Amino acid sequence: MKKSLHPSVLVVGTGAVGSLYGGKLSQSGASVSVLCRSDYDSVKTSGIFVKSHWGDFSFQPEEVYRFSDKPLQEFDYILVALKVLPEISVPDIISRFVTKKSSVVLLQNGIDIEEPVAHAFPDAEIISGIAFTCVSRTSPGKIHHMDYGRLKFGLYPKGLSKKTQDLCFLFGQAGVPCDTTDNIRKSRWQKLVWNAPFNPISVLCGGATTREILDLHETRGLVEKIMEEVLLIAEKTGNALPLSVIKKNIDDTKNMKPYKTSMCLDFESKRPMEVEAILGNAVRIARETGARTPCLETLYGLLKLIDEKNKKNPKFETLNPKK
Amino acid sequence: MKKSLHPSVLVVGTGAVGSLYGGKLSQSGASVSVLCRSDYDSVKTSGIFVKSHWGDFSFQPEEVYRFSDKPLQEFDYILVALKVLPEISVPDIISRFVTKKSSVVLLQNGIDIEEPVAHAFPDAEIISGIAFTCVSRTSPGKIHHMDYGRLKFGLYPKGLSKKTQDLCFLFGQAGVPCDTTDNIRKSRWQKLVWNAPFNPISVLCGGATTREILDLHETRGLVEKIMEEVLLIAEKTGNALPLSVIKKNIDDTKNMKPYKTSMCLDFESKRPMEVEAILGNAVRIARETGARTPCLETLYGLLKLIDEKNKKNPKFETLNPKK
Repeated sequence: MKKSLHPSVLVVGTGAVGSLYGGKLSQSGASVSVLCRSDYDSVKTSGIFVKSHWGDFSFQPEEVYRFSDKPLQEFDYILVALKVLPEISVPDIISRFVTKKSSVVLLQNGIDIEEPVAHAFPDAEIISGIAFTCVSRTSPGKIHHMDYGRLKFGLYPKGLSKKTQDLCFLFGQAGVPCDTTDNIRKSRWQKLVWNAPFNPISVLCGGATTREILDLHETRGLVEKIMEEVLLIAEKTGNALPLSVIKKNIDDTKNMKPYKTSMCLDFESKRPMEVEAILGNAVRIARETGARTPCLETLYGLLKLIDEKNKKNPKFETLNPKK
Repeated sequence: MKKSLHPSVLVVGTGAVGSLYGGKLSQSGASVSVLCRSDYDSVKTSGIFVKSHWGDFSFQPEEVYRFSDKPLQEFDYILVALKVLPEISVPDIISRFVTKKSSVVLLQNGIDIEEPVAHAFPDAEIISGIAFTCVSRTSPGKIHHMDYGRLKFGLYPKGLSKKTQDLCFLFGQAGVPCDTTDNIRKSRWQKLVWNAPFNPISVLCGGATTREILDLHETRGLVEKIMEEVLLIAEKTGNALPLSVIKKNIDDTKNMKPYKTSMCLDFESKRPMEVEAILGNAVRIARETGARTPCLETLYGLLKLIDEKNKKNPKFETLNPKK
């Protein structure tokens, strides 16, 4: 029997990730509305255009909401694709849209980012998702999807659900490689093995590419040490990963085109970086579990000061919806 | 009886440190010649002008030598004030000038920087010196001495000598605060307690001042951890320093005017940084002695990549005298 699903989806945030994957869900038959802030006028008038290595496409959302608007309908999925920043409160932003019908999908970076949302909506199903992709917003409503694009979803904190599997099926219908896991937290640690070294080092070394980082003996050694520290915390939290993921991550990265990380692109564009989601939470969990992670602590301190200094730059782009 | 000394001194390098202290020695009656490279024409024609918080002064060296010139006389002191960089071989540069009469004075930054010179001239007296000063070269032959200026000298590897004490006396004659120590290596570790955190962090955090570094909880904590690692290596090399130097260094720095480190000024001016002298040597000694210094290792790896990338910048100023 052929499945046919037409859920209603609210995509929160029309940045790169929200626009790309919202558009894909729309292609597979979902009714997709969006909630946006600075891009509102552009998206309302002209929709979203995605230049993608999977094939270019346009996408006109069903409804375009401002952060202050009231919902005109209930949603099956509220897919949050905002950056994870201390100044952005996801519960505040989505509270008017969450009903008994809604699953909240957090398609965001970092470690332990689900907790505030799960705490705010104790009865809601929280689906946690990871995007392995290389995509950026070039201007309001204009997205460039350069490479990759795989997704992974799981129920938070653990397990699977029908709606998780339905969501994965929908993405598959639109040609997006997608799978599910019953342990999404472990998958987040696995992703951090890559993010924890490459994102910070690329920023701290003045926009270094993955190739430059791996070509120098000293930084390559540092990448390995940081990966070891991530494995140590993962193990302490009951999410042990095999040591072989280090070699695999490094080998895979060597075979990639030289690549500037998303944190580095954020930094260079004077946007806030996801320092807390990617490093701060990991460091705090390390401290709680007694894992010694001096290299991560060092990167965290350095990035924190860079981010603070960046915020004082007059060209800095605030993402705080309250401002 | 009043001492009266008129030694002959060759100052190697007419950067900030060489010019300031060469000029001071000349004021106290020494016959001071200089050996320089890119500043040759300017210094030969117009001498050196020092704008100093001790009082401005001009200084015309006795002789101005190029790196390729032959000496016209013997020198009592060969005072090396070059940056410590892998591409600069001090033995190659001074070998024509070193005679039985000469003491070689290394007024340079870093740890274990005397070893190559001591190895090249096993019969020469090596005096090792540290400058606690804030001085920069604004253009060829023009120096700006903004703050501080104290000197410390000792015989390398250990002990004192008459010529060390004479040198100190000479500086004192010119009003330069100067003292001697019979354990200059310990003094170098003591200076590294400050240099190891502040120099790298200022560069890695995009030109952060000492004030910015200490004002943020996370970087202040990092400064303390790095200082602890330096104390650990110092202890392993038999140069134990009291733990109280950490608090003292931090308190003193808080009371200083917000200050950009010399490594940061070098980086911003696209000049090579003393990464090996300040961090590389410390990290290597840590490894040899079994001291665990993960924060220092992290800073070292990051700075190494920044320095490599900086060297590829077309505006980069090479200091290699062979080029």
